[in-house]
Amino acid sequence: MATDKYSPPKYFQIRRKIVGSIQRGELPPGAPVPSENDIIGKYQVSNTTARKVLHELEKEGWVTRIKGKGTFVRNFPIVRAINRIFGFTRNMIEAGRKPATKLIGFHLRDEDHSQTINGRRFTLKGPFCEIERLRLADGIPMMKETRYISLNLCPDIQRRNLEQSLYEVFEKHYGIQLTEINQMLSAVVLEGEWLNIFQVERPIPAFRVEGASFCGKDIIVEMENAVYRGDMYRFAAKAVR
Amino acid sequence: MATDKYSPPKYFQIRRKIVGSIQRGELPPGAPVPSENDIIGKYQVSNTTARKVLHELEKEGWVTRIKGKGTFVRNFPIVRAINRIFGFTRNMIEAGRKPATKLIGFHLRDEDHSQTINGRRFTLKGPFCEIERLRLADGIPMMKETRYISLNLCPDIQRRNLEQSLYEVFEKHYGIQLTEINQMLSAVVLEGEWLNIFQVERPIPAFRVEGASFCGKDIIVEMENAVYRGDMYRFAAKAVR
Repeated sequence: MATDKYSPPKYFQIRRKIVGSIQRGELPPGAPVPSENDIIGKYQVSNTTARKVLHELEKEGWVTRIKGKGTFVRNFPIVRAINRIFGFTRNMIEAGRKPATKLIGFHLRDEDHSQTINGRRFTLKGPFCEIERLRLADGIPMMKETRYISLNLCPDIQRRNLEQSLYEVFEKHYGIQLTEINQMLSAVVLEGEWLNIFQVERPIPAFRVEGASFCGKDIIVEMENAVYRGDMYRFAAKAVR
Repeated sequence: MATDKYSPPKYFQIRRKIVGSIQRGELPPGAPVPSENDIIGKYQVSNTTARKVLHELEKEGWVTRIKGKGTFVRNFPIVRAINRIFGFTRNMIEAGRKPATKLIGFHLRDEDHSQTINGRRFTLKGPFCEIERLRLADGIPMMKETRYISLNLCPDIQRRNLEQSLYEVFEKHYGIQLTEINQMLSAVVLEGEWLNIFQVERPIPAFRVEGASFCGKDIIVEMENAVYRGDMYRFAAKAVR
């Protein structure tokens, strides 16, 4: 292990190795992670450092400590089913997490909005409202989204409380139920200002999700462009013949 | 732009900036990329360097040059639909690419094989055959997979030609048609030996795909653990009420 004065602190290097093993699946959910004594022996560090490694892993949600039993890899924090029409709020509640939403900004725009999703160009007719929000679970920033919402279908939506589920706003205030969502997932690495947004220190893998949501054939209610933290999310899919 | 002797060559830095813009969607498919003259003017480099940037981008499949018109961002190389039961081979043929498969190795194992997918533990009863393969499109390594295949359902599969579609082998030789696939996607960053496997120079984002495939209720034919290059793949999903 590199230890010159330019390297990150030891606890951080060890933490990164363990997180790497979890991410690569070498340490699957439920597996025991190295104990304080294991870490001291293997990496020749003090018990303060070993304790700090385990503390950081727990704080970041990678592991759970069970009294008298040891420390174990947590179940993947959040699984999001991409075959279901359901929002962040319901996803978090079902996962036993406390959802919160922070409105970062919005803009009213008159033009049309187009995005290419799965090789097909989708266009939302203007005017639309562009809403930028950070979504949190138990206080941890999980996802950042930009939503483009039809003002023809949802007039004056900017006057609603925009720190709640937009699916509920669609239903309650506009009587709109989504019938279909087309989504495209990309794998990206978050760097630069994204590290501030998600309060992480090093580049992390992430999913970019672009989508178009319909209420009835060919009627687009909204489009989205969101980034989900790859260290906090798994996407679940089911294909059936 | 950094230019001291420890930085990567200029063409590489410029290439990286442009690839970043494509990955972040700032340069969407079909958009023109900076011309040779644009690059010379903006980055103060020679025409040799500018030409090399465009040549690399083309070689790596990011852009297409259209004679007399300019250079444009290519459609995302490959879209993979996760609601469909179809393999790499068919995916590539539909995308107009030439698929190839390189068998890296196989092992016969007697024990059971378990993987946790979407929070549920799936077990393939032993004995099974573990097959490791690299999948290519037009000669470019796109995906690496490890497949765990039931030897009860597919006896002696190791004696078949394993550089073809395994779905075809299942059907043709064992009369097995898959009825359901459960998959879980993770976002990861590929480093270390992965860069050699995919013949890339720098860490790239990627999808890890873990899956369990069934032929009939509760009968697992195979499980998989695959890595898809994030710079070459998008995953498409559709949710319907």
